[in-house]
Order: sequence, then structure tokens, then C-alpha cells
Amino acid sequence: MTENPLSSSSRVPVIEKLLTANEEVAADNRAELKIHGVKVINIMASPGAGKTTLLLATIEALGEAGPSIGVIEGDVASQVDADKIATTGVPVVQINTGGGCHLDAPMIRHGLQALPLEELDVIFVENVGNLICPVAFDLGQDFKVGLLSTPEGHDKPYKYPGIFEAVDLVVVTKSDLLPYLDFEVDTFRELVHGLNPDAPVLVVSAKTGEGMDAWVGWLSEQLRK
Amino acid sequence: MTENPLSSSSRVPVIEKLLTANEEVAADNRAELKIHGVKVINIMASPGAGKTTLLLATIEALGEAGPSIGVIEGDVASQVDADKIATTGVPVVQINTGGGCHLDAPMIRHGLQALPLEELDVIFVENVGNLICPVAFDLGQDFKVGLLSTPEGHDKPYKYPGIFEAVDLVVVTKSDLLPYLDFEVDTFRELVHGLNPDAPVLVVSAKTGEGMDAWVGWLSEQLRK
Repeated sequence: MTENPLSSSSRVPVIEKLLTANEEVAADNRAELKIHGVKVINIMASPGAGKTTLLLATIEALGEAGPSIGVIEGDVASQVDADKIATTGVPVVQINTGGGCHLDAPMIRHGLQALPLEELDVIFVENVGNLICPVAFDLGQDFKVGLLSTPEGHDKPYKYPGIFEAVDLVVVTKSDLLPYLDFEVDTFRELVHGLNPDAPVLVVSAKTGEGMDAWVGWLSEQLRK
Repeated sequence: MTENPLSSSSRVPVIEKLLTANEEVAADNRAELKIHGVKVINIMASPGAGKTTLLLATIEALGEAGPSIGVIEGDVASQVDADKIATTGVPVVQINTGGGCHLDAPMIRHGLQALPLEELDVIFVENVGNLICPVAFDLGQDFKVGLLSTPEGHDKPYKYPGIFEAVDLVVVTKSDLLPYLDFEVDTFRELVHGLNPDAPVLVVSAKTGEGMDAWVGWLSEQLRK
């Protein structure tokens, strides 16, 4: 029997653990950010969970004596969020996905080119409002933070486990609405820790300031790492 | 100059308006539903906007003398929503997308096979919680309804125009929370009508019953068509 030369596995180049295009660009972003000593926080949540409002309160809480901040805003359309951030004087870039349901690493690369990296300590990336799609895309960030607002209900880890497994921190937003809702904080925390035992769960209201110290404390600790 | 035979357009078969695989199955679903005289309402909204809660209140409001109802629940994971619907005695099917960010027509085809179509007048499809991805997928439905909960903010039509352009009706949910929020109903209505002048905007609270009559009235009108 003649051996078919095409079946000889020794002639077949095997490339293992090939990065996807997105992962390659994410690695480039990470390298570029390391050169400039900039940390990136990728913030993911549903539409209307209070991402921009928390960012505005965070910029105020960190203050002028705090780290130098930049923001990348991701939305399907419009620049209403970037306009709000711009009122604080912080450098901000708006990325419109034009229908896409998440940010990806090439979009962030473009965003980084429009920010003064040499002047910044931290960049907050506000991802597109979506509990599902953004989770699968590495942007080159240092930390991933998932927000869930109290009106969304404490059962969301059952229905959207991926995001709660993926993040380094979970922030429950809009705690000021707790008196009017049946959101059970302890139940939510147990569900999150069932999926991700190491992720702290903070309870915050950007409106009243409740919990902002713990959130700013967590941020400051990550920026020192 | 010799004519290149390959450039002769008369020999090239031209197939226009080819349906996608999803559109073909959606058309099949629509035909199947028409045979059985069943209307389908595709309900789309963010996570935690109150889709299941509105459905539970709707099943109660329509009552036993009303149309015969079935429900298809779409979620990334779990069956907590279907379990809630099942307590009403209404036939319900849970579809888990396993990570997918929307329902599609083949999923609905499977769902329809598990429901007693000959006994039903209307099927409510609760799509995956997502303001972006579900919009692009025809399920074979008769009507598309978009929900936006008051805590999400009245600016959402700027940022997620696609859903507000696509739907036949917009329902603002959780109106009982309006006193605690800065949600401007008139501004929201204007933004929706800028994108979709023909879509009524109803304001509803499944908790207090506010606006339920208008919502049930709209439904009853569509079911008579």
C-alpha cells in the first residue's frame, strides 16, 4: 500500500493557541497601555443601568488631586453620553458601533489614539448597554466591572451568567430605589458568588453617594497594583 | 475586440430579493400560525425592563373569558421566567439560547411545535433581554412591541434607535417609579415619534395597574384584525 503523501501529518504545520484578530489587537492595546502606565477599566451593563451617571460621580469623587482620567464611550448611536462626560473637562472619545452590540479591541485602539495617553493614569471604557455580547470581547483592559441596577431585579445572574462569571467586581447601582423595589441584595450577592466567588459585590447610589467610598476605594487599590 | 463570453450578463442567473435562512423559516412560521389563526406578539426590551411581570399582569387582565394565550420565553440561560408564567396555567415553552443574544425564527419553530396551536389565539414571545440584537430577526410575528422601563432613562431612543424604529407599539413600564426618577415621559414620546411617528406610546405599571386598560385595549384591537 502506497502512503498518500498528503496524509503525512509531519508535513502539516500545526499552529496551536492561535489568537483571534480581536485578541491580537487586545494584546497590542495592553502593551501600548503598559508603556504609558495607563490602567483600563471595562464597564459593562444593561442599557440604562447607570454607567454614565456612576462615571460622572466617580470623576467628581476622585477629584483633581486624584488620578488623571480619560473616558471611552461606546454606543450604537449618538454622543449624548460623551457630551455629559465632556462637561467635567475629562478627555473623552465617543465610539459609535453603528448597530454593533459591543465594543471590540480595534475600536478601542482607535479610541486610544484620540486620547493623551502620556497624561493619563486610568481610562474608563463604557461599553455598549448589553449584558451579553460585550463579555466575549477582550479590549485590552486591566479590569472588568459589571453593573446591575436595582430595578433590573436580583434574578439576573440566573439569566445572564456569563457577565457575572467574567467580571472582577460587581456594582449594584441605584441603591436609592431599593425602598420601592423587591430587589434582595443578599440573594443577589449569593447568586453572584455562586458563579464567581472572588468578585466583590458593592452597593452604590451615584445619586445619594451611598457606597461611593467603597467603589472609589476599590478603584484606588487597583490603580496602585 | 473580442467579447469575453463570461461578461455576458444574459448568461448570469440573477436571483433577486433572496430570503435569508432566518427569513425563510420566519415565513414558514407565519404560514403555520395563519393556518391555526394564532397571532404572535414579539416583545423586546432590556434585561429587567419588566417583560415577564407585564406578561403575568396581562394574562390576569385578559382573564379566562379572554383570548387563549401561549407564551414562548427566551433567555440565555435558566427557566425562571417560564416557571413564573407556568404558575398561571398558561402553556409556556422556555428557549435557552446558550449565549446567543436574541431569538431567531428556527428557535420559534421549535417553540411552536411544543405548544397546542389549535387551542390558542395569541402567543406572546418574550425575547432575550437586549435592546439591540433581537431587532434584526423576524420570528414570523404579527406585531413587535418594545418595552422601556422608566429607570432606564428617557434618552434611550438616541442611543438605541433601531428598536424604536422597528416596533408597532412602545410600552413604558414601571410608571410607579416615576416619582423617584427624572424620566420625562413627554420627551421620551417625542423622541420615539421622531423615529417612528405611527407607534403609540403607552405608559404602564404592572404593579399598580396604571395604563393596563390601554395596553389590553391595544392588544384586543390587534387580535380582532
